[in-house]
Amino acid sequence: MSARLAIGIDIGGTKVAGGVVDENGVIVHRTRRDTPHRSTSPSVVENTIVEAVDDLLARVDHDDIVAVGIGAAGFVAVDRATVVFAPHLSWRNEPLRDALAARIAFPVTVDNDANAAAWAEATYGAARGESHVVMITLGTGIGGALIIDHQVQRGRNGIAGEFGHMQIVPNGIRCECGNRGCWEQYASGNALVREASAMMHAGSPVVADLLTKLDGDPAGLSGPFITEAARGGDAMARELLADIGEWLGIGMANLAAAFDPGLFVIGGGVSAAGEMLIGPAREAFRRQLTGRGYRPEARIVRAVLGGDAGLIGAAELARADQ
Amino acid sequence: MSARLAIGIDIGGTKVAGGVVDENGVIVHRTRRDTPHRSTSPSVVENTIVEAVDDLLARVDHDDIVAVGIGAAGFVAVDRATVVFAPHLSWRNEPLRDALAARIAFPVTVDNDANAAAWAEATYGAARGESHVVMITLGTGIGGALIIDHQVQRGRNGIAGEFGHMQIVPNGIRCECGNRGCWEQYASGNALVREASAMMHAGSPVVADLLTKLDGDPAGLSGPFITEAARGGDAMARELLADIGEWLGIGMANLAAAFDPGLFVIGGGVSAAGEMLIGPAREAFRRQLTGRGYRPEARIVRAVLGGDAGLIGAAELARADQ
Repeated sequence: MSARLAIGIDIGGTKVAGGVVDENGVIVHRTRRDTPHRSTSPSVVENTIVEAVDDLLARVDHDDIVAVGIGAAGFVAVDRATVVFAPHLSWRNEPLRDALAARIAFPVTVDNDANAAAWAEATYGAARGESHVVMITLGTGIGGALIIDHQVQRGRNGIAGEFGHMQIVPNGIRCECGNRGCWEQYASGNALVREASAMMHAGSPVVADLLTKLDGDPAGLSGPFITEAARGGDAMARELLADIGEWLGIGMANLAAAFDPGLFVIGGGVSAAGEMLIGPAREAFRRQLTGRGYRPEARIVRAVLGGDAGLIGAAELARADQ
Repeated sequence: MSARLAIGIDIGGTKVAGGVVDENGVIVHRTRRDTPHRSTSPSVVENTIVEAVDDLLARVDHDDIVAVGIGAAGFVAVDRATVVFAPHLSWRNEPLRDALAARIAFPVTVDNDANAAAWAEATYGAARGESHVVMITLGTGIGGALIIDHQVQRGRNGIAGEFGHMQIVPNGIRCECGNRGCWEQYASGNALVREASAMMHAGSPVVADLLTKLDGDPAGLSGPFITEAARGGDAMARELLADIGEWLGIGMANLAAAFDPGLFVIGGGVSAAGEMLIGPAREAFRRQLTGRGYRPEARIVRAVLGGDAGLIGAAELARADQ
């Protein structure tokens, strides 16, 4: 009897993470590469994916592999074959599935990376057993996914879940998407770094300790740096996390008004800040939820699969199709 | 062979509209009552519903009736039996279905009024054939409903679709729900009246013509009055409609980011303004939609069933359960 293993490949803005995933959601082999720069042609990214898959295939019995799933940061059409638009890559209406199918001897499916992460958390992680889930991945921006009746919802054209581009502040901060005031400009790693950087460039004393830790160079700022400083007790770093937590809670209250989920799962790199972020988010959510006091309140928890969620979910979604 | 007729009762803030609906969505008998004031006890509203049903039953062969559906403006639990909270009525965790079942000799189901209206538009109206639909009913506030894969989505607890209480302006105008900046404070009949009234009380010359039509008394202001004046060419009335249209479009772009529907249907009393409202809404939507130019755009159309949508949909949802 074959093992029904699946390969998952998670293509992010900076790295391509791959793994062979067994039927218990365990990653039994791993591989990792840098994401080609967005200025390179689509075929370079394809080559990187194929190399990662070949690397993994060299370590397993091919009879045990049933499918290859790709999770990509971008708009994936509802046919789960075409990447319509990927802001961090050169794909524009890229027929990724068919291009890969010609080079990989297994069925290939493509999905949005946040959909994949949500599916992993629903199958093996923080959202097990929950029927109605909103997944929010906080990285440089905000990724999102929606599970209703235990199914990932992709929308009419495959582009549902772009919560980070809901306008939360009229005439607010400009977003890469071309709009102003998008949620991800207020509740993301980019927001953390932008705010700290602005204060450093203004010479504010409240970030003097942080700046000393960076040897005086604001260019070294990052989300993980601020989280680490907050963990070490830096008051301003804690305030910055609480501020994005508050915006996170306000946005979640909006999503609760619209979807009425039973659970929010907070993943992505910034979620490493844990309760320093999620505590203020929960508080803002409770203060902002419409009908509060007259309705059950959704739970808000941290994702448990960390950076592996995307590749595990991509593998699961591909296996489920076979 | 019996006719499989269903009775639908739509309980709004001001009126109770009832009808016998045939299998083609045609209302074959009608009845209508005032909604009891919110200060009265739940049993008074029940009496009103029972009277409306009895009035309709007196006009049909009882063997032809298969079910009675109630559409109510409020949070209806996912069991479709309990009204958790109704802002305009005295219901708080009211077991409406069971209370009515004891007095009505047919199966009774309860649903949110916007869900009912959306289902009517999906079955017989503007949303026929569409798999992913957002329904927005613009009255004094904003009601909403979500259809995914041809099914009304109620959320984990039955409270999905409260789009009107998504915050669109931080620290914005106070809403009856207790929050500030809710969408319905900017894109609804109340917003129209509030803005015109403020200008009248300030003695602004731009509303002088409107005030003359009201014999100098701003208390006569209403959504229909402003729509009528706009139709007659009043420039300020047209601007007011365009302003709420713009907020409508911005909010729809947010919902498109989250759900990716194929169609928005705009219903409710304010939608009578037609293109004076929907034109500016469409324009704002297109300017604000994230990924515009890289994705298919949802269509935005006016509802076609008018004030009958709620009762037709309530009847349909009840019949579908039998």
